[in-house]
Amino acid sequence: MALFLIGIGLGDAKGVTLQGMELLEKADKVYLEGYTSVLNCPVEELEKIIGKKVELADRAMVEQKAEFTILQAARDGDAALLVIGDPLVATTHVDLMQRARKEKIRVEVVHNASIVSAIGATGLQVYKFGKVTSIPFPEKGHGAETPYKVLAENQKSGAHTLILLDLRPQENRFMTVNEAIEHLLKLELNLGQNVFTRDTLCIGCARIGAKDQLIKAGKAKDILNWEFGKPVHCLVVPGRLHFMEEEAVQQFR
Amino acid sequence: MALFLIGIGLGDAKGVTLQGMELLEKADKVYLEGYTSVLNCPVEELEKIIGKKVELADRAMVEQKAEFTILQAARDGDAALLVIGDPLVATTHVDLMQRARKEKIRVEVVHNASIVSAIGATGLQVYKFGKVTSIPFPEKGHGAETPYKVLAENQKSGAHTLILLDLRPQENRFMTVNEAIEHLLKLELNLGQNVFTRDTLCIGCARIGAKDQLIKAGKAKDILNWEFGKPVHCLVVPGRLHFMEEEAVQQFR
Repeated sequence: MALFLIGIGLGDAKGVTLQGMELLEKADKVYLEGYTSVLNCPVEELEKIIGKKVELADRAMVEQKAEFTILQAARDGDAALLVIGDPLVATTHVDLMQRARKEKIRVEVVHNASIVSAIGATGLQVYKFGKVTSIPFPEKGHGAETPYKVLAENQKSGAHTLILLDLRPQENRFMTVNEAIEHLLKLELNLGQNVFTRDTLCIGCARIGAKDQLIKAGKAKDILNWEFGKPVHCLVVPGRLHFMEEEAVQQFR
Repeated sequence: MALFLIGIGLGDAKGVTLQGMELLEKADKVYLEGYTSVLNCPVEELEKIIGKKVELADRAMVEQKAEFTILQAARDGDAALLVIGDPLVATTHVDLMQRARKEKIRVEVVHNASIVSAIGATGLQVYKFGKVTSIPFPEKGHGAETPYKVLAENQKSGAHTLILLDLRPQENRFMTVNEAIEHLLKLELNLGQNVFTRDTLCIGCARIGAKDQLIKAGKAKDILNWEFGKPVHCLVVPGRLHFMEEEAVQQFR
């Protein structure tokens, strides 16, 4: 009776670690968290590699219904929840861990690569990033100014900003770098603090960590129409650049 | 002829991913970067798991002498550099990657768990961390005020601060949480901006991601004498806490 929270890294089926494989061997039931990110291969490929059937878990299953699904499986035997990225980066999994512990269910965590460190692929120093923010799909009444505010705050201290983009895998909707830039330009129009203009240096990223990863740096107006292809995308707005970072960014222009 | 930069995660020999194992199988020469972090198992255990001899690479080998060691091996065949954590977090490896690319050596990167995301184990939200800073061992003429300044900056925006602690594996010297707190209290005495006092909430961490990971939260004066055991240690100074974070921190008091 245990809950294994197993990170599988940036979405490749071969991102599982040897430690993760050992736990998966013991697992009686295997779930894959499928709403905060998305695999970049068919789930069947993952099943083949780990040698077990994988059940896709949506938000309801990990949050409201966890009692009757994942936590129940962890009471009945060993349950594994595969998480794309690192399992303790999203609040939803930290929360699940706390709930399990309150019930005295043993929890084992296998960390793995997350976008917050893999973003070093842009050549920017990971240590110099400030708070991470995200852009949600526009919805009525949604406070969508947060990314603008976080960006403004980070800029004050010269920190880089990683902006994660909304995704709804079950509806096959993934925000693109282009939509993100448009959204920030609109916020600039409304809020007018000169935080994000058409001349702001941006680094658009797609599929970081995958074989076909794409990184493109330039002014917002130039990146705006660039085609980044398949998800997952994210956007970086650099702060003060060290000359080595400058050089690294240069190669992606 | 290629250079593989392979992250192995938080120091366990079984942290290698399946993708990493595939590349290691092809590698003609395998190095382990041994100066920015340290394995928490004997190198022989790692050698057994990957089935190859591993040569320990010190700073000179990865930096000044890379031409004649790692890069030469990547010209002669396939060379792998194993890196504890994620291979693109430390500047030294990003620099090695750029040098290889300038020479048209193909580079493959395998990302893995890094302390900057695994720190979610404290229950603090990874997205709400500001810039990461580090405390170096005191040396003559060394500008040791940086961690204090970064902490002050992060506090202004309510961001959490991850403070990495210096280590010199070859001299078997590893800064402890206790030394780090003493260092910050001394800086407070000198700089007096009320950034880090004996009453500041701290989270001391040791061996994050390992089976015997230790996390202890409390006021600086209480953590100051806590025994954290074996390396690697790091220190977190929380910013503004969300009630869920508050609850998570509570369990480590």
